[in-house]
Amino acid sequence: MVEGLDPARAVADLRALRELTGDERGAQRVAWTGTWALGRAWLRERLAELPVEVDTDEAGNVWARLPGASERTVVLGSHLDSVPDGGWLDGALGVLGGLAVLRALAAAGEPPVSVALVDWADEEGARFGRSLLGSSLATGALDPEAVAGDIDRDGVTLADALSEHGVDLGRAPAARGRLDHAAAYLELHIEQGPVLERRGEAVAVVTGTAGVERHRVRLTGQAVQGGAFPMDARHDALVAAARLVLEVRAAASDERSRATVGDVRVQPGIPTAVPGACELVVDQRHPDAEVVAGMLRAVREAGDRIAAEEGVAIEWERTWRIAPVQFDATLLDLAEAAARAETGAAPRLFSGALHDAAAVANAGVPAVMLFVQSRGGISHHRDEDTRPEHLEAAVRTLHRLTAAVIERVAGGGP
Amino acid sequence: MVEGLDPARAVADLRALRELTGDERGAQRVAWTGTWALGRAWLRERLAELPVEVDTDEAGNVWARLPGASERTVVLGSHLDSVPDGGWLDGALGVLGGLAVLRALAAAGEPPVSVALVDWADEEGARFGRSLLGSSLATGALDPEAVAGDIDRDGVTLADALSEHGVDLGRAPAARGRLDHAAAYLELHIEQGPVLERRGEAVAVVTGTAGVERHRVRLTGQAVQGGAFPMDARHDALVAAARLVLEVRAAASDERSRATVGDVRVQPGIPTAVPGACELVVDQRHPDAEVVAGMLRAVREAGDRIAAEEGVAIEWERTWRIAPVQFDATLLDLAEAAARAETGAAPRLFSGALHDAAAVANAGVPAVMLFVQSRGGISHHRDEDTRPEHLEAAVRTLHRLTAAVIERVAGGGP
Repeated sequence: MVEGLDPARAVADLRALRELTGDERGAQRVAWTGTWALGRAWLRERLAELPVEVDTDEAGNVWARLPGASERTVVLGSHLDSVPDGGWLDGALGVLGGLAVLRALAAAGEPPVSVALVDWADEEGARFGRSLLGSSLATGALDPEAVAGDIDRDGVTLADALSEHGVDLGRAPAARGRLDHAAAYLELHIEQGPVLERRGEAVAVVTGTAGVERHRVRLTGQAVQGGAFPMDARHDALVAAARLVLEVRAAASDERSRATVGDVRVQPGIPTAVPGACELVVDQRHPDAEVVAGMLRAVREAGDRIAAEEGVAIEWERTWRIAPVQFDATLLDLAEAAARAETGAAPRLFSGALHDAAAVANAGVPAVMLFVQSRGGISHHRDEDTRPEHLEAAVRTLHRLTAAVIERVAGGGP
Repeated sequence: MVEGLDPARAVADLRALRELTGDERGAQRVAWTGTWALGRAWLRERLAELPVEVDTDEAGNVWARLPGASERTVVLGSHLDSVPDGGWLDGALGVLGGLAVLRALAAAGEPPVSVALVDWADEEGARFGRSLLGSSLATGALDPEAVAGDIDRDGVTLADALSEHGVDLGRAPAARGRLDHAAAYLELHIEQGPVLERRGEAVAVVTGTAGVERHRVRLTGQAVQGGAFPMDARHDALVAAARLVLEVRAAASDERSRATVGDVRVQPGIPTAVPGACELVVDQRHPDAEVVAGMLRAVREAGDRIAAEEGVAIEWERTWRIAPVQFDATLLDLAEAAARAETGAAPRLFSGALHDAAAVANAGVPAVMLFVQSRGGISHHRDEDTRPEHLEAAVRTLHRLTAAVIERVAGGGP
C-alpha cells in the first residue's frame, strides 16, 4: 500500500521551503506577503511535475486535482502561511506531506476517485486577525463584507491586500463549488502541544476541535496617585484583573479544559499611578460545548464578585466564539487503523487549536485530522520541531489513511 | 498677623495661570517646554511688581528674594511645572500661595530676616523621567553627568533641553550657594489623597515623606499555544505576575503602607499564546524605613515561592530608592500652631508622594510642608480641584506659619 511513497522527500521539501522562506527568526510566510507568494510559487513548481490540474479558487486557495475514475473527491489540505517568526512545520507539513501522497498516488495510475490537495489561504490570520480566512470564505462560513474593511498595522484593508494577490474578495463565496464533490477531507498537522511527547507516541487521531469562547474584558477603577492613596481607598483595576486571571485558570480544572489570558493592558500604565483601567482577553476552550459554557459562566460570576469587592466596573465583549467540531466517526476509525498499522499506537486527542478541518467539517464534508508529535510542544516559534522519523511516520500514516479512504469512497462511503 | 494678605488674589492668580497654560485636557506646563516658560514669564511679571530681586540659578530654578535685616533666609518654594494633562494646583498652589505671602510681607516693610520664594525647575520629571530635578541638582543630590544623556521621546537629551532654556547643566551644582543662608524651607501643596476630605479638614501638617523602594520585576515562563497546551504543562508568566500583584497588596497591610503595581507588560501579548514573559513595576512606600524594607522582603519571598510553584524565572532590578525624610520638629510644631489657629485643626499626615521639600531637608535645611484638602484625592488630572475656601485657608496658614518662622529665625532659631 505504501508503494511509491517517498516520505523522506517530504522532509526534504519541508527543509527546502524553510530555506526559501525562513530567516534566523523563523518562518516568514505571512499570508498576503511576498514571501508567502514565493512559497506558493515554489509549491506550484513541485506540482507542475505531476499529472494534476492546478489553479487558485475565488477565495485564494490553491488546488491541485488528480482526476480519478469518479468525480467524487478525497481532499487533503493544510496551509503554507505562517505567523511572523513562525515554525517550519505548522501548516507546511500538511501541504508537503499531502504533496508526497499525491506523488505516490499519481505514480500508481488513475485512482478510482479523484484526489485533491488544497493549500488554504491565510489560516493563521496573522496580518488581519482573521483565522481560517480562506477555508471560511470557501465554505461560506464567513461573509466577505464582514471583513473587507479589516485593516493591518499599516492601514491596508483586507480587500486591498487580497486584490494585490489576485483575489476579488466579493467573489470569494464562489469557491464553495470546490467542495461540491468532496467526499472526505484529511489534514495532517503538528500537535503544538506536549501530549504525544509525554506518551512517547508519534501520531494521534484527532477527534475534533474545541469550542472557543473569547472575550475582551474591561475593568474600570480609578487612576490616583499611588504614593498618596491609602490602600483601602483604592479602586485598582490591575488588582481586579490579577484576581480575574487566577479565576480563569481555576475554572479550567477539567483535564481537557484550556484557558488563557494572553494579554493585559494597563492605563495609565505608569509606576506612580494606581491603574485606572485594565483590558484583558480571556480565551476558554473545551471539546464539550456545555463545559466551555460552564467555564465562561464561572468566570463571569467571579468577575462580578471581584468587581463588587474592588469597587470597579466590569464589561465583557465577546470577540470570537466557535462551537466544538466532532470529526467523522468512520474517518476516525480509518485514521485509527492507519496510525496503528504504521506506528503501533493510535491515541485519540482533541485539538484545542483551530484548523481549516473545522471549517470544512462545519460545511458538511466528513473530515478527520492526524497529529504528529511536536518537540516540547513548541509552535509559532523558530524552535518548533519534530523528529524526522516522526515526520516520515506521519506522512506514511497520511498515505495509508488516504488509500483507505479512497477505497471506501470508491465503494460508496464513507 | 494676616494683615495685608490677600488669599483671594492667590486663587485668582491660580485661575489666571490655568487660563494661560492649560487647555481642555488640563495643565500643560511640562518642564522645558514653551508653555512652562510662558507660565514662568507670567510669574516674573507678577514678581516685578514687588520689591524683590528675581533671578534664575545655575540649575534653572527661579528665585525671588525679599532682602531683610539679616542674610538668614526663610525660603518658600514649590514648582510651576506640571505633568501633561495635569491639574491646575499641583505645584502652582505652593508658588502662587508663596507669592501672596511675599506680597503681604513686602507690603509690611523690611522683614527682620530675608525671605525667598523659589520655583523649582522640573519637579515632575514628566519629560525625562527624573523627579525633583531642579531641587536635586541645587542641593547636590544629583550628579549632572548622571542625567546629561537622558533622552525624551523625541531623542532630545536632557542637557540639550536645559540648554534651550539657558541652563548649562554642567554648572548646575553652583546653585547650591542659594541655600547657604537658608534657615528654613516651607512648602504648601495639595494632598493628592483622600484623607483630609474624609476627615472634613482643610489643612494638614506634613511630618515627612515616605521611603520608596521601586523595582522592575521580570517573570520568564514559556510562550506556548494556548489552545493546545494542557493547564498542568504551562509556565504562564502572567499567572505568576497576577499572584505577585496580589502579594504586593497583601504586604501593604499597615495603614501607612502604600504599594502599587502601576504597569504590566506581557510578551508575546496575543490572545492565543500563553504569556512567556511579564514585566511589572513594584512601588512600595512607608514613612518608616524598616517597614518598607520588610514589605520588600515579604514580596521577594512570595515571588520566589510563586516562581518555584509556577516554574518561571524571576528577576528583580531596583530602579529607584529613597530613604524616608522626617521634617523638622520645631517647624512641625509651628505649622501645627498655624493650622490650628487658622482652621481649628491640625492633623499630621505623612506624604507618600515625593516633593522638593524632601530634597531640601536632605540637604540639611530645616523643612516642613502643609497639605490642603484635594477633592476626591484626584491629582495629575484636569479634574484635580480644591474648594476656594480651602485654598484661601491654606494660603492664610502658610502666611501665619511664615510669620512665625521669621520671628523664630530672627530670634536665632529654629
